[in-house]
Amino acid sequence: MQDHQSQPLNDFIEYPHEEMLNRANEFLQTSQRRHSIRSFSDRPVPKNIIEACIKAAGTAPSGANHQPWHFVAINSSDVKKQIREAAEKLERSFYEGRAGEEWLDALKPLGTDANKPYLEHAPWLIAVFSQKKGGVNTDDKNTNYYVHESVGLATGFLIQALHRSGLATLTHTPKPMSFLTDICKRDKDNERPYMLLIAGYPSDDATVPAHALDKKSIDEIATFI
Amino acid sequence: MQDHQSQPLNDFIEYPHEEMLNRANEFLQTSQRRHSIRSFSDRPVPKNIIEACIKAAGTAPSGANHQPWHFVAINSSDVKKQIREAAEKLERSFYEGRAGEEWLDALKPLGTDANKPYLEHAPWLIAVFSQKKGGVNTDDKNTNYYVHESVGLATGFLIQALHRSGLATLTHTPKPMSFLTDICKRDKDNERPYMLLIAGYPSDDATVPAHALDKKSIDEIATFI
Ligand SMILES: N[C@@H](Cc1ccc(O)c(I)c1)C(=O)O
Ligand SMILES: N[C@@H](Cc1ccc(O)c(I)c1)C(=O)O
Repeated sequence: MQDHQSQPLNDFIEYPHEEMLNRANEFLQTSQRRHSIRSFSDRPVPKNIIEACIKAAGTAPSGANHQPWHFVAINSSDVKKQIREAAEKLERSFYEGRAGEEWLDALKPLGTDANKPYLEHAPWLIAVFSQKKGGVNTDDKNTNYYVHESVGLATGFLIQALHRSGLATLTHTPKPMSFLTDICKRDKDNERPYMLLIAGYPSDDATVPAHALDKKSIDEIATFI
Repeated sequence: MQDHQSQPLNDFIEYPHEEMLNRANEFLQTSQRRHSIRSFSDRPVPKNIIEACIKAAGTAPSGANHQPWHFVAINSSDVKKQIREAAEKLERSFYEGRAGEEWLDALKPLGTDANKPYLEHAPWLIAVFSQKKGGVNTDDKNTNYYVHESVGLATGFLIQALHRSGLATLTHTPKPMSFLTDICKRDKDNERPYMLLIAGYPSDDATVPAHALDKKSIDEIATFI
Protein backbone atom coordinates (compact mmCIF):
# COMPACT_ATOMS: atom_id res chain seq x y z
CA MET A 1 0.00 0.00 0.00
CA GLN A 2 2.76 2.41 0.83
CA ASP A 3 5.71 3.28 -1.34
CA HIS A 4 8.42 2.24 1.07
CA GLN A 5 10.21 -0.76 2.44
CA SER A 6 10.02 -1.57 6.08
CA GLN A 7 11.32 -4.14 8.49
CA PRO A 8 9.78 -5.48 11.67
CA LEU A 9 11.09 -3.78 14.81
CA ASN A 10 13.00 -6.74 16.13
CA ASP A 11 15.53 -5.24 18.52
CA PHE A 12 13.18 -3.61 21.03
CA ILE A 13 13.79 -4.79 24.59
CA GLU A 14 10.87 -4.78 26.98
CA TYR A 15 11.41 -4.58 30.74
CA PRO A 16 8.91 -5.06 33.59
CA HIS A 17 7.61 -1.77 35.02
CA GLU A 18 9.77 -2.02 38.11
CA GLU A 19 12.90 -2.40 36.03
CA MET A 20 11.83 0.46 33.76
CA LEU A 21 11.62 2.72 36.78
CA ASN A 22 15.00 1.54 38.03
CA ARG A 23 16.50 2.22 34.63
CA ALA A 24 14.93 5.68 34.46
CA ASN A 25 16.30 6.46 37.91
CA GLU A 26 19.75 5.17 37.02
CA PHE A 27 19.78 7.49 34.00
CA LEU A 28 18.53 10.37 36.14
CA GLN A 29 21.13 9.85 38.85
CA THR A 30 23.96 9.52 36.35
CA SER A 31 22.73 12.66 34.57
CA GLN A 32 22.67 14.53 37.89
CA ARG A 33 26.41 13.91 38.19
CA ARG A 34 27.00 15.82 34.94
CA HIS A 35 28.24 19.37 35.45
CA SER A 36 29.73 21.77 32.96
CA ILE A 37 33.26 22.54 34.14
CA ARG A 38 35.67 25.24 33.05
CA SER A 39 39.01 23.85 34.17
CA PHE A 40 40.32 20.85 32.28
CA SER A 41 43.39 18.67 32.75
CA ASP A 42 45.64 18.21 29.71
CA ARG A 43 45.70 14.42 30.19
CA PRO A 44 45.09 12.72 26.85
CA VAL A 45 41.92 10.82 25.96
CA PRO A 46 42.12 8.13 23.25
CA LYS A 47 40.50 8.94 19.93
CA ASN A 48 38.47 5.71 19.82
CA ILE A 49 36.38 6.85 22.80
CA ILE A 50 35.51 10.14 21.10
CA GLU A 51 34.73 8.24 17.92
CA ALA A 52 32.27 5.89 19.64
CA CYS A 53 30.56 8.91 21.27
CA ILE A 54 30.18 10.68 17.93
CA LYS A 55 28.77 7.50 16.40
CA ALA A 56 26.19 7.45 19.20
CA ALA A 57 25.33 11.09 18.42
CA GLY A 58 24.78 10.01 14.82
CA THR A 59 21.95 7.68 15.89
CA ALA A 60 19.73 10.63 16.82
CA PRO A 61 16.43 11.03 14.99
CA SER A 62 16.48 13.71 12.28
CA GLY A 63 14.11 15.29 9.78
CA ALA A 64 13.51 12.74 7.00
CA ASN A 65 16.54 10.84 8.42
CA HIS A 66 18.90 13.23 6.63
CA GLN A 67 21.34 13.36 9.57
CA PRO A 68 22.22 17.00 8.87
CA TRP A 69 25.33 17.17 11.05
CA HIS A 70 29.08 17.10 10.94
CA PHE A 71 31.39 16.81 13.93
CA VAL A 72 34.94 18.12 13.78
CA ALA A 73 36.92 16.52 16.61
CA ILE A 74 40.03 18.54 17.30
CA ASN A 75 43.04 17.13 19.05
CA SER A 76 45.69 19.18 17.20
CA SER A 77 47.43 21.65 19.53
CA ASP A 78 47.90 24.04 16.68
CA VAL A 79 44.19 24.12 15.79
CA LYS A 80 43.16 24.35 19.44
CA LYS A 81 45.47 27.36 19.83
CA GLN A 82 43.86 29.07 16.85
CA ILE A 83 40.42 28.44 18.31
CA ARG A 84 41.44 29.76 21.71
CA GLU A 85 42.84 32.93 20.19
CA ALA A 86 39.80 33.60 18.05
CA ALA A 87 37.35 32.78 20.85
CA GLU A 88 39.13 34.92 23.46
CA LYS A 89 39.19 37.86 21.11
CA LEU A 90 35.42 37.64 20.68
CA GLU A 91 34.85 37.05 24.38
CA ARG A 92 36.88 40.14 25.30
CA SER A 93 34.59 42.37 23.27
CA PHE A 94 31.60 40.48 24.68
CA TYR A 95 32.62 40.99 28.31
CA GLU A 96 33.78 44.56 27.67
CA GLY A 97 30.36 45.69 26.56
CA ARG A 98 28.84 43.84 23.64
CA ALA A 99 26.93 41.56 26.02
CA GLY A 100 25.02 44.37 27.70
CA GLU A 101 24.25 44.70 31.38
CA GLU A 102 21.41 42.19 31.71
CA TRP A 103 23.41 39.40 30.10
CA LEU A 104 26.52 40.11 32.19
CA ASP A 105 24.35 40.05 35.32
CA ALA A 106 22.94 36.68 34.31
CA LEU A 107 26.48 35.31 33.93
CA LYS A 108 27.82 36.62 37.25
CA PRO A 109 26.87 33.53 39.24
CA LEU A 110 28.83 31.41 36.76
CA GLY A 111 32.05 33.35 37.29
CA THR A 112 32.97 33.22 33.60
CA ASP A 113 35.28 35.71 31.90
CA ALA A 114 37.05 36.16 28.57
CA ASN A 115 39.89 33.77 29.39
CA LYS A 116 39.42 30.35 27.87
CA PRO A 117 42.63 28.41 28.63
CA TYR A 118 40.69 25.14 28.49
CA LEU A 119 40.28 25.59 24.74
CA GLU A 120 43.99 24.83 24.55
CA HIS A 121 44.42 22.48 27.50
CA ALA A 122 41.53 20.07 27.08
CA PRO A 123 42.45 17.07 24.92
CA TRP A 124 39.41 17.37 22.64
CA LEU A 125 37.28 20.13 21.22
CA ILE A 126 34.29 18.98 19.19
CA ALA A 127 32.85 21.58 16.83
CA VAL A 128 29.30 20.65 15.83
CA PHE A 129 28.09 21.87 12.43
CA SER A 130 24.58 21.79 10.96
CA GLN A 131 23.94 21.31 7.24
CA LYS A 132 21.34 23.18 5.21
CA LYS A 133 21.43 20.82 2.26
CA GLY A 134 22.14 17.11 2.23
CA GLY A 135 20.17 13.90 2.40
CA VAL A 136 20.29 10.27 3.42
CA ASN A 137 23.38 9.95 1.24
CA THR A 138 26.25 12.24 2.08
CA ASP A 139 26.54 13.50 -1.49
CA ASP A 140 22.87 14.48 -1.78
CA LYS A 141 22.13 18.15 -2.18
CA ASN A 142 18.49 18.10 -1.11
CA THR A 143 16.81 20.34 1.42
CA ASN A 144 17.28 19.24 5.01
CA TYR A 145 14.32 19.58 7.41
CA TYR A 146 14.21 20.59 11.05
CA VAL A 147 17.96 21.06 10.85
CA HIS A 148 18.38 22.98 14.07
CA GLU A 149 16.19 20.56 16.04
CA SER A 150 17.92 17.49 14.61
CA VAL A 151 21.38 18.80 15.45
CA GLY A 152 20.20 19.77 18.92
CA LEU A 153 19.04 16.22 19.61
CA ALA A 154 22.30 14.76 18.26
CA THR A 155 24.33 17.13 20.42
CA GLY A 156 22.26 16.09 23.46
CA PHE A 157 23.06 12.46 22.63
CA LEU A 158 26.75 13.39 22.30
CA ILE A 159 26.91 15.10 25.70
CA GLN A 160 25.28 12.05 27.30
CA ALA A 161 27.68 9.71 25.50
CA LEU A 162 30.73 11.65 26.65
CA HIS A 163 29.45 11.95 30.21
CA ARG A 164 28.53 8.30 30.56
CA SER A 165 31.95 7.33 29.15
CA GLY A 166 33.62 9.20 31.99
CA LEU A 167 34.44 12.53 30.35
CA ALA A 168 33.68 16.00 31.62
CA THR A 169 32.32 18.48 29.10
CA LEU A 170 31.56 22.13 28.58
CA THR A 171 29.16 23.49 26.00
CA HIS A 172 30.60 26.68 24.57
CA THR A 173 28.82 29.13 22.29
CA PRO A 174 31.09 32.05 21.41
CA LYS A 175 29.16 34.65 19.43
CA PRO A 176 29.46 34.80 16.44
CA MET A 177 30.82 31.30 15.87
CA SER A 178 31.74 31.69 12.21
CA PHE A 179 35.48 31.55 13.03
CA LEU A 180 34.95 27.82 13.60
CA THR A 181 33.93 27.39 9.97
CA ASP A 182 37.19 29.01 8.83
CA ILE A 183 39.50 27.27 11.26
CA CYS A 184 37.88 23.85 10.68
CA LYS A 185 37.87 24.53 6.90
CA ARG A 186 34.17 23.71 6.50
CA ASP A 187 31.93 24.76 3.60
CA LYS A 188 30.53 28.09 4.73
CA ASP A 189 27.69 28.03 2.21
CA ASN A 190 26.18 24.80 3.49
CA GLU A 191 27.31 24.43 7.10
CA ARG A 192 26.82 26.51 10.20
CA PRO A 193 28.57 26.03 13.53
CA TYR A 194 26.02 24.97 16.15
CA MET A 195 28.08 24.56 19.28
CA LEU A 196 31.57 23.83 20.52
CA LEU A 197 31.99 21.05 23.08
CA ILE A 198 35.08 20.77 25.23
CA ALA A 199 35.80 17.25 26.48
CA GLY A 200 38.40 15.79 28.80
CA TYR A 201 39.20 15.18 32.45
CA PRO A 202 38.53 17.88 35.01
CA SER A 203 41.63 19.48 36.50
CA ASP A 204 42.23 18.76 40.18
CA ASP A 205 40.88 22.15 41.15
CA ALA A 206 37.81 22.12 38.88
CA THR A 207 34.75 23.66 40.49
CA VAL A 208 31.05 23.96 39.77
CA PRO A 209 29.21 27.24 40.34
CA ALA A 210 26.85 26.70 43.29
CA HIS A 211 24.16 28.25 41.12
CA ALA A 212 24.52 25.57 38.44
CA LEU A 213 23.73 22.86 41.00
CA ASP A 214 20.39 24.51 41.56
CA LYS A 215 17.98 22.85 39.18
CA LYS A 216 14.26 23.50 38.95
CA SER A 217 11.96 20.91 40.49
CA ILE A 218 9.78 18.57 38.45
CA ASP A 219 6.71 20.67 39.32
CA GLU A 220 8.39 23.72 37.86
CA ILE A 221 9.43 22.09 34.60
CA ALA A 222 6.54 19.72 33.98
CA THR A 223 2.74 19.56 33.93
CA PHE A 224 0.92 16.22 33.88
CA ILE A 225 -2.52 16.15 32.32
CA MET B 1 38.41 37.29 42.88
CA GLN B 2 35.21 36.41 41.09
CA ASP B 3 31.73 37.42 42.12
CA HIS B 4 30.33 33.92 42.48
CA GLN B 5 30.23 30.97 44.78
CA SER B 6 31.56 27.67 43.67
CA GLN B 7 31.96 24.17 45.00
CA PRO B 8 34.59 21.56 44.24
CA LEU B 9 33.50 19.05 41.60
CA ASN B 10 33.24 16.09 43.93
CA ASP B 11 30.99 13.66 42.11
CA PHE B 12 33.06 13.05 38.98
CA ILE B 13 33.81 9.36 38.43
CA GLU B 14 36.98 8.47 36.58
CA TYR B 15 37.31 5.16 34.73
CA PRO B 16 40.39 3.52 33.19
CA HIS B 17 40.63 4.05 29.40
CA GLU B 18 39.54 0.51 28.66
CA GLU B 19 36.40 0.91 30.72
CA MET B 20 35.71 4.30 29.12
CA LEU B 21 35.74 2.67 25.72
CA ASN B 22 33.48 -0.13 26.93
CA ARG B 23 31.08 2.43 28.34
CA ALA B 24 31.11 4.46 25.11
CA ASN B 25 30.41 1.30 23.12
CA GLU B 26 27.62 0.25 25.47
CA PHE B 27 25.99 3.64 24.96
CA LEU B 28 26.49 3.38 21.20
CA GLN B 29 25.02 -0.10 20.96
CA THR B 30 22.04 0.81 23.11
CA SER B 31 21.50 3.94 21.01
CA GLN B 32 21.61 1.85 17.83
CA ARG B 33 18.59 -0.07 19.09
CA ARG B 34 16.54 3.16 19.17
CA HIS B 35 14.21 3.58 16.22
CA SER B 36 11.35 5.99 15.74
CA ILE B 37 8.19 3.93 15.36
CA ARG B 38 4.75 4.93 14.18
CA SER B 39 2.57 2.17 15.59
CA PHE B 40 2.10 2.15 19.36
CA SER B 41 0.31 -0.23 21.69
CA ASP B 42 -2.22 1.29 24.09
CA ARG B 43 -0.73 -0.54 27.07
CA PRO B 44 -0.30 1.91 29.95
CA VAL B 45 3.04 3.17 31.23
CA PRO B 46 3.25 4.38 34.85
CA LYS B 47 3.60 8.12 35.39
CA ASN B 48 6.61 7.79 37.68
CA ILE B 49 8.75 6.49 34.80
CA ILE B 50 7.86 9.49 32.62
CA GLU B 51 8.53 11.77 35.57
CA ALA B 52 12.03 10.39 36.14
CA CYS B 53 12.80 10.79 32.41
CA ILE B 54 11.66 14.42 32.41
CA LYS B 55 13.78 15.07 35.51
CA ALA B 56 16.75 13.68 33.58
CA ALA B 57 15.95 16.02 30.68
CA GLY B 58 16.00 18.88 33.19
CA THR B 59 19.67 18.20 33.98
CA ALA B 60 20.74 19.35 30.50
CA PRO B 61 23.10 22.33 30.27
CA SER B 62 21.38 25.60 29.31
CA GLY B 63 22.30 29.22 28.61
CA ALA B 64 23.14 30.85 31.96
CA ASN B 65 21.51 27.77 33.59
CA HIS B 66 18.05 29.27 32.99
CA GLN B 67 16.54 25.87 32.06
CA PRO B 68 14.18 27.49 29.52
CA TRP B 69 11.87 24.50 29.07
CA HIS B 70 8.51 23.13 30.07
CA PHE B 71 7.27 19.61 29.44
CA VAL B 72 3.57 18.85 29.24
CA ALA B 73 3.09 15.11 29.70
CA ILE B 74 -0.29 14.07 28.41
CA ASN B 75 -2.03 10.91 29.48
CA SER B 76 -5.62 12.22 29.27
CA SER B 77 -7.57 10.49 26.48
CA ASP B 78 -9.56 13.61 25.94
CA VAL B 79 -6.51 15.82 25.41
CA LYS B 80 -4.82 13.21 23.22
CA LYS B 81 -7.94 13.12 21.06
CA GLN B 82 -7.87 16.90 20.65
CA ILE B 83 -4.21 16.74 19.66
CA ARG B 84 -4.82 13.96 17.16
CA GLU B 85 -7.65 15.89 15.53
CA ALA B 86 -5.71 19.13 15.27
CA ALA B 87 -2.54 17.38 14.04
CA GLU B 88 -4.33 15.30 11.41
CA LYS B 89 -6.06 18.36 10.06
CA LEU B 90 -2.70 20.08 9.57
CA GLU B 91 -1.11 16.95 8.16
CA ARG B 92 -3.88 16.56 5.60
CA SER B 93 -3.16 19.98 4.14
CA PHE B 94 0.57 19.21 4.35
CA TYR B 95 0.33 15.96 2.42
CA GLU B 96 -2.23 17.38 0.00
CA GLY B 97 0.10 20.07 -1.25
CA ARG B 98 1.49 22.42 1.36
CA ALA B 99 4.64 20.29 1.70
CA GLY B 100 5.65 20.64 -1.92
CA GLU B 101 7.07 17.96 -4.16
CA GLU B 102 10.64 17.84 -2.89
CA TRP B 103 9.56 17.39 0.71
CA LEU B 104 7.01 14.68 -0.14
CA ASP B 105 9.71 12.86 -2.11
CA ALA B 106 12.02 12.99 0.90
CA LEU B 107 9.29 11.45 3.06
CA LYS B 108 8.38 8.62 0.68
CA PRO B 109 10.88 6.14 2.11
CA LEU B 110 9.37 6.71 5.57
CA GLY B 111 5.87 5.76 4.43
CA THR B 112 4.22 8.46 6.54
CA ASP B 113 0.81 9.94 5.79
CA ALA B 114 -1.74 12.23 7.42
CA ASN B 115 -3.18 9.56 9.72
CA LYS B 116 -1.78 9.76 13.23
CA PRO B 117 -3.73 7.17 15.26
CA TYR B 118 -0.78 6.81 17.63
CA LEU B 119 -1.48 10.30 18.94
CA GLU B 120 -4.53 8.76 20.57
CA HIS B 121 -3.32 5.24 21.24
CA ALA B 122 0.09 5.78 22.79
CA PRO B 123 -0.08 6.16 26.57
CA TRP B 124 1.98 9.36 26.69
CA LEU B 125 2.48 12.41 24.53
CA ILE B 126 5.09 14.85 25.77
CA ALA B 127 4.84 18.36 24.37
CA VAL B 128 8.12 20.23 24.80
CA PHE B 129 7.93 24.01 25.09
CA SER B 130 10.74 26.59 25.04
CA GLN B 131 10.60 29.79 27.06
CA LYS B 132 11.74 33.20 25.83
CA LYS B 133 11.85 34.79 29.28
CA GLY B 134 12.64 33.16 32.60
CA GLY B 135 15.67 32.60 34.75
CA VAL B 136 17.20 30.34 37.36
CA ASN B 137 14.05 30.87 39.41
CA THR B 138 10.80 29.91 37.75
CA ASP B 139 9.23 33.29 38.47
CA ASP B 140 12.06 35.30 36.91
CA LYS B 141 11.20 37.30 33.83
CA ASN B 142 14.72 37.77 32.49
CA THR B 143 15.97 37.11 28.99
CA ASN B 144 16.82 33.49 28.31
CA TYR B 145 19.88 32.71 26.17
CA TYR B 146 20.46 30.05 23.54
CA VAL B 147 16.88 28.94 24.14
CA HIS B 148 16.55 26.78 21.07
CA GLU B 149 19.89 25.07 21.65
CA SER B 150 19.19 24.47 25.34
CA VAL B 151 15.80 22.91 24.65
CA GLY B 152 17.31 20.78 21.89
CA LEU B 153 19.87 19.34 24.29
CA ALA B 154 17.20 18.68 26.94
CA THR B 155 14.98 16.95 24.39
CA GLY B 156 17.94 14.80 23.31
CA PHE B 157 18.43 13.84 26.98
CA LEU B 158 14.70 13.04 27.23
CA ILE B 159 14.71 10.74 24.19
CA GLN B 160 17.73 8.89 25.61
CA ALA B 161 16.06 8.62 29.02
CA LEU B 162 12.86 7.18 27.56
CA HIS B 163 14.73 4.78 25.29
CA ARG B 164 17.03 3.50 28.01
CA SER B 165 14.03 3.01 30.30
CA GLY B 166 12.49 0.66 27.76
CA LEU B 167 10.09 2.96 25.92
CA ALA B 168 9.72 3.46 22.21
CA THR B 169 9.39 7.04 20.98
CA LEU B 170 8.56 9.12 17.97
CA THR B 171 9.56 12.74 17.49
CA HIS B 172 6.73 14.57 15.83
CA THR B 173 6.82 18.09 14.41
CA PRO B 174 3.48 19.07 12.91
CA LYS B 175 3.74 22.45 11.21
CA PRO B 176 2.69 24.91 12.58
CA MET B 177 2.69 23.58 16.13
CA SER B 178 0.83 26.44 17.77
CA PHE B 179 -2.25 24.27 18.38
CA LEU B 180 -0.21 22.60 21.13
CA THR B 181 0.00 25.91 22.98
CA ASP B 182 -3.78 26.21 22.94
CA ILE B 183 -4.61 22.61 23.80
CA CYS B 184 -2.00 22.48 26.58
CA LYS B 185 -3.12 25.91 27.81
CA ARG B 186 0.38 27.37 27.83
CA ASP B 187 1.29 31.08 27.80
CA LYS B 188 1.53 31.90 24.10
CA ASP B 189 3.49 35.11 24.70
CA ASN B 190 6.37 33.40 26.44
CA GLU B 191 6.37 29.79 25.30
CA ARG B 192 6.73 28.11 21.93
CA PRO B 193 6.16 24.44 21.15
CA TYR B 194 9.46 22.83 20.20
CA MET B 195 8.52 19.23 19.54
CA LEU B 196 5.98 16.56 20.40
CA LEU B 197 7.27 13.21 21.62
CA ILE B 198 5.13 10.09 21.55
CA ALA B 199 6.15 7.46 24.10
CA GLY B 200 4.94 3.97 24.84
CA TYR B 201 5.32 0.36 23.80
CA PRO B 202 5.49 -0.56 20.14
CA SER B 203 2.45 -2.42 18.81
CA ASP B 204 3.08 -6.03 17.81
CA ASP B 205 3.21 -5.09 14.15
CA ALA B 206 5.42 -1.99 14.54
CA THR B 207 7.93 -1.60 11.72
CA VAL B 208 10.96 0.55 10.95
CA PRO B 209 11.48 1.99 7.47
CA ALA B 210 14.50 0.21 5.96
CA HIS B 211 15.78 3.64 5.06
CA ALA B 212 15.85 4.78 8.68
CA LEU B 213 18.20 1.93 9.56
CA ASP B 214 20.68 3.32 7.11
CA LYS B 215 22.91 5.65 9.08
CA LYS B 216 25.91 7.52 7.75
CA SER B 217 29.34 6.15 8.66
CA ILE B 218 31.69 7.84 11.09
CA ASP B 219 33.83 9.07 8.16
CA GLU B 220 30.82 10.79 6.68
CA ILE B 221 29.74 12.53 9.87
CA ALA B 222 33.08 13.30 11.48
CA THR B 223 36.51 14.74 10.74
CA PHE B 224 39.40 14.24 13.15
CA ILE B 225 42.14 16.87 13.13
N1 LIG C 1 5.00 16.08 9.99
C1 LIG C 1 4.62 15.12 8.98
C2 LIG C 1 5.69 14.96 7.93
C3 LIG C 1 7.04 14.49 8.35
C4 LIG C 1 7.25 13.21 8.81
C5 LIG C 1 8.54 12.77 9.13
C6 LIG C 1 9.61 13.65 8.97
O1 LIG C 1 10.89 13.25 9.27
C7 LIG C 1 9.39 14.94 8.50
I1 LIG C 1 10.90 16.19 8.18
C8 LIG C 1 8.11 15.35 8.21
C9 LIG C 1 4.28 13.78 9.60
O2 LIG C 1 4.49 13.59 10.80
O3 LIG C 1 3.76 12.91 8.91
N1 LIG D 1 30.17 32.82 25.67
C1 LIG D 1 30.61 33.46 26.89
C2 LIG D 1 29.49 33.90 27.79
C3 LIG D 1 28.56 32.85 28.29
C4 LIG D 1 28.97 31.89 29.19
C5 LIG D 1 28.08 30.97 29.73
C6 LIG D 1 26.76 31.00 29.32
O1 LIG D 1 25.84 30.11 29.83
C7 LIG D 1 26.35 31.98 28.39
I1 LIG D 1 24.45 32.15 27.88
C8 LIG D 1 27.25 32.87 27.89
C9 LIG D 1 31.61 32.58 27.64
O2 LIG D 1 31.77 31.43 27.28
O3 LIG D 1 32.22 33.05 28.59
